Amino acid sequence: MGKLKPNKKGKYLIGVDMGGTNLRAGLVDLEGKVLGEAHRPSHAEEGMKKSVEMTIEAAREVIESRSIKKEEICGIGLAVPGNHKSGEGICLYSPNFAPPFPVPVLEPIEKALGLAAYMLNDVNTAALGEHRFGAGRGYDNMVMITLGTGIGGGAVVDGQLRVGPTEGFAEVGHMIIDPEGPQCGCGNHGCWEALAGKDAIIERAVFELQQGESSLLMELAKGDINAITPSLIAQAAEQEDELAQAVLDETAYWVGIGCVNLITLYNPQVLVIGGGIAGALPLMEPTLQQVVNARARMVPASTCKIVPSALGDDAGIIGGAVLVIRELQ
Amino acid sequence: MGKLKPNKKGKYLIGVDMGGTNLRAGLVDLEGKVLGEAHRPSHAEEGMKKSVEMTIEAAREVIESRSIKKEEICGIGLAVPGNHKSGEGICLYSPNFAPPFPVPVLEPIEKALGLAAYMLNDVNTAALGEHRFGAGRGYDNMVMITLGTGIGGGAVVDGQLRVGPTEGFAEVGHMIIDPEGPQCGCGNHGCWEALAGKDAIIERAVFELQQGESSLLMELAKGDINAITPSLIAQAAEQEDELAQAVLDETAYWVGIGCVNLITLYNPQVLVIGGGIAGALPLMEPTLQQVVNARARMVPASTCKIVPSALGDDAGIIGGAVLVIRELQ
Repeated sequence: MGKLKPNKKGKYLIGVDMGGTNLRAGLVDLEGKVLGEAHRPSHAEEGMKKSVEMTIEAAREVIESRSIKKEEICGIGLAVPGNHKSGEGICLYSPNFAPPFPVPVLEPIEKALGLAAYMLNDVNTAALGEHRFGAGRGYDNMVMITLGTGIGGGAVVDGQLRVGPTEGFAEVGHMIIDPEGPQCGCGNHGCWEALAGKDAIIERAVFELQQGESSLLMELAKGDINAITPSLIAQAAEQEDELAQAVLDETAYWVGIGCVNLITLYNPQVLVIGGGIAGALPLMEPTLQQVVNARARMVPASTCKIVPSALGDDAGIIGGAVLVIRELQ
Repeated sequence: MGKLKPNKKGKYLIGVDMGGTNLRAGLVDLEGKVLGEAHRPSHAEEGMKKSVEMTIEAAREVIESRSIKKEEICGIGLAVPGNHKSGEGICLYSPNFAPPFPVPVLEPIEKALGLAAYMLNDVNTAALGEHRFGAGRGYDNMVMITLGTGIGGGAVVDGQLRVGPTEGFAEVGHMIIDPEGPQCGCGNHGCWEALAGKDAIIERAVFELQQGESSLLMELAKGDINAITPSLIAQAAEQEDELAQAVLDETAYWVGIGCVNLITLYNPQVLVIGGGIAGALPLMEPTLQQVVNARARMVPASTCKIVPSALGDDAGIIGGAVLVIRELQ
């Protein structure tokens, strides 16, 4: 948190999703409804400091475009990718942003906007949004994962999002599920995200295509094997392409193994799946649920519903708003 | 918990460790010191109901032997193996005890002794003991594991032991760390305990011996390959037996992989290792720590100390006392 106190008399919140490419500031009401948005490029290549400036611009725009008075706003909450000392308002490191690090995030925002500012890791913030206003609503124990380039996680235990002493709680993408498995970006081998993240999915498809398997995929990728994406794979699978479905099934197997572990370790009532690849979830769901049913034994599969994110792309903005809302009580 | 209220004016607690073979009742003071003990066979073969009777006998003996008045006792806390509805005082299932299940545990104890009674899964109770009075003292985020026939776990998150909605939190022994690995007692494959529990260690040694490798072990086991235990393996390794040390190194590798996951998922400041096999920890420690240092990356190894249990065999009794103490505030 920053140094300012939240305005408990306000009725609006600003939630900001600071992505690596674009950032979105949203005006959110106390019921978690997004009333308006302003977008900016993140300029991550110019460093986090520049993104903080973009955040200030976007926040100002969304406030002014709706003719909201500062007195009506409780505060601003940011979903920021990377590792932080959120309590001190500092980003320690964020892989998609250019150095230098660390970068003070909240101080310049509070100074420019005169609003109490809060921040948290992007996935934790999304989990907070899903817990308060989305698919995790009403459950005291929830795990959210985001399937994308990496696999992120956030966990609510006994009603509270837990972040851990070094803000490393639920770094689910880096649990080892195959110790001799492929190398992960983190340097370890066999991390969940090395087996079920975006690159793993693409590599699986490319490998099969290189074996000479025929598939709609090459057509969808306009003949360019380097243009294959999870979303093209999902498109092909929707058109009953066998290779694409096999790739999704194998991915679903690995997603399922990780989900078994999360159920066994956090005993959640609900496991929410979001992120860029979550769109392919209906195509992966049968295999995923089969793996979970078969292998979640000590803490049975029946104790935990697996559901898609309810907030989708807005989870970061709404979660940012919740960062402020939870300070109002 | 049972129906009675704890006696806040008391200065002693009864903590009971209900093992599958023996049960131990201890008189414990408010500083976690064990002042006296009484032991009984568990009679697990006659069912949990019989063990509850034995608990009552042992508790009476330890109270009477010290000439303590009932008014001086705050309550009684039980470390009970198995799955429970602890809040209702009921054991749902416990693998080493004969049926029938479920069994009311707390009600008959409160009735017989007139003391407020509490229960929790044995490993969770031990974790509570280590957190309040042992190796986890002073840390708000701790994971305890017990290495034995199985691998149990208990996790303190933000200052509180978390048990989860179905008391399945931190069933660490059943996280999958090798999906195609050996079958586990739970029916799943490649669970942590199937790779690093007692049976896995013994099988590893037996396999090597059957390959014709020479080892002190056969001598220590008096020529009977079926008599090999983890403790004999540790004895042989202490005498620099290469086969035994290799078995412990391989085990330490798997213990380490699991520890990496616990650090990555719970972000603890301290990871406490107890249980029957923990005695061999000094022999496994170099490999274990090497694996953790190399592979705990996203949440670095430096964030978490790995230490042996401080309470050893008393963790259950002292944890039982803590079950009562935490109700006194």
